[in-house]
Amino acid sequence: MLTRGQFQRLKELKEKKHREALGLFVVEGEKVVSELLAAGLVFSEIYATAAWGGKRTEMITEEEMARASHFPTPSSVLAVGEIQRKTLGAGELNKGLTLALDGVQDPGNVGTILRIADWFALDRVLLSPTCADLYSQKVINASMGSFARVRSIAVNLPEALGEAEVPILGCDLEGDSVHSLAGLNAAVIVIGSEGRGISGEVKAVLSKRITIARLGGAESLNAAVAAGIVCDNLRRKSS
Amino acid sequence: MLTRGQFQRLKELKEKKHREALGLFVVEGEKVVSELLAAGLVFSEIYATAAWGGKRTEMITEEEMARASHFPTPSSVLAVGEIQRKTLGAGELNKGLTLALDGVQDPGNVGTILRIADWFALDRVLLSPTCADLYSQKVINASMGSFARVRSIAVNLPEALGEAEVPILGCDLEGDSVHSLAGLNAAVIVIGSEGRGISGEVKAVLSKRITIARLGGAESLNAAVAAGIVCDNLRRKSS
Repeated sequence: MLTRGQFQRLKELKEKKHREALGLFVVEGEKVVSELLAAGLVFSEIYATAAWGGKRTEMITEEEMARASHFPTPSSVLAVGEIQRKTLGAGELNKGLTLALDGVQDPGNVGTILRIADWFALDRVLLSPTCADLYSQKVINASMGSFARVRSIAVNLPEALGEAEVPILGCDLEGDSVHSLAGLNAAVIVIGSEGRGISGEVKAVLSKRITIARLGGAESLNAAVAAGIVCDNLRRKSS
Repeated sequence: MLTRGQFQRLKELKEKKHREALGLFVVEGEKVVSELLAAGLVFSEIYATAAWGGKRTEMITEEEMARASHFPTPSSVLAVGEIQRKTLGAGELNKGLTLALDGVQDPGNVGTILRIADWFALDRVLLSPTCADLYSQKVINASMGSFARVRSIAVNLPEALGEAEVPILGCDLEGDSVHSLAGLNAAVIVIGSEGRGISGEVKAVLSKRITIARLGGAESLNAAVAAGIVCDNLRRKSS
């Protein structure tokens, strides 16, 4: 049985400010909770109805789940995890490949980019404070479990990039071809906001701009699609 | 002033069966309607409130728009277009580059793939009957105007591909590297469903399978991200 206070706390975790204050986040759904458990994520609380076959810390009724859930159509499981904010180590950006997201606001895009970074085994993903919150359910769901495997760090982007000694390459509508990335083994690639591209402050610290050549009529590519093309090029053997 | 019958007809166009029966589709939103008009699409009806600055065929009130709209938050413009189903010409697939979507069900993915096909100037996109409907608002919105520029054809996929004389390459979890696509100038690339991949019937007509090598932990890539990586490789100069 959940108390009134417990319901209220679970509901509040829908909003970023309450997640930050309590240091907790919520994930719901059989598929995503199973994937995160399989990826080794440890939840502090797992509420589930009789329909859930996995691990739980408390059995609740369907009515209670409907009341606690953040969605109009609740699933059989709602898990609560502790937010563990990672910090960037000194000189860390100088090793390996980093994707830096500068104002990627759509949570579906942020989650899909985590999945791409996981697929291509990038070393880390940086997120500016203007990106969708890493601990929102939409981001975690779209990442399909990659949320638990990718080293993701929220940072002040211009400050963090200012200390990097490796090339900092920004995806833009003009610049060198993305095909020039093959064989790079230490670099930061910046993906800008869906509507406005890379911010002025981050543009100031770029080593150069790279571009995916446009041959047809579309005005832009989706941010996650651009990130996928960048990663495929980074992981190509240099010819 | 819209009549009761007009409201009913506009509302019904939310469903595919009614769109098919009437041969009409609806698009709403300032940005997408402007983009489609700029791309040369001719609408048969454009209903707009006083807030819409563009072309219209009938001025309606905000209350009428709220009643006609398919969305809880209506915009200032609702346009109706005639469905013009294209058919595949004899031997058409033997010329140029074709993306074939086999059961891509998410309308956001279908729209994003149209935008990718437009960006990379592919010659056409084929859609199996199991794909999201080309004339749903979610597809048209996600395509960002590319809907009006890309030659998109709904077909019986195994039948259409059975007549092609060019290589038919299927994206799969195993196969030749996607990096082998460079320099191909006539081919069909098949993108399968988000959950189940390419259907058995289509697998039977593939010339070979291609893959985007996985280096990390993610189980799959998003269908639109995979299509973007395929197109970038097709448009790369062969080395």
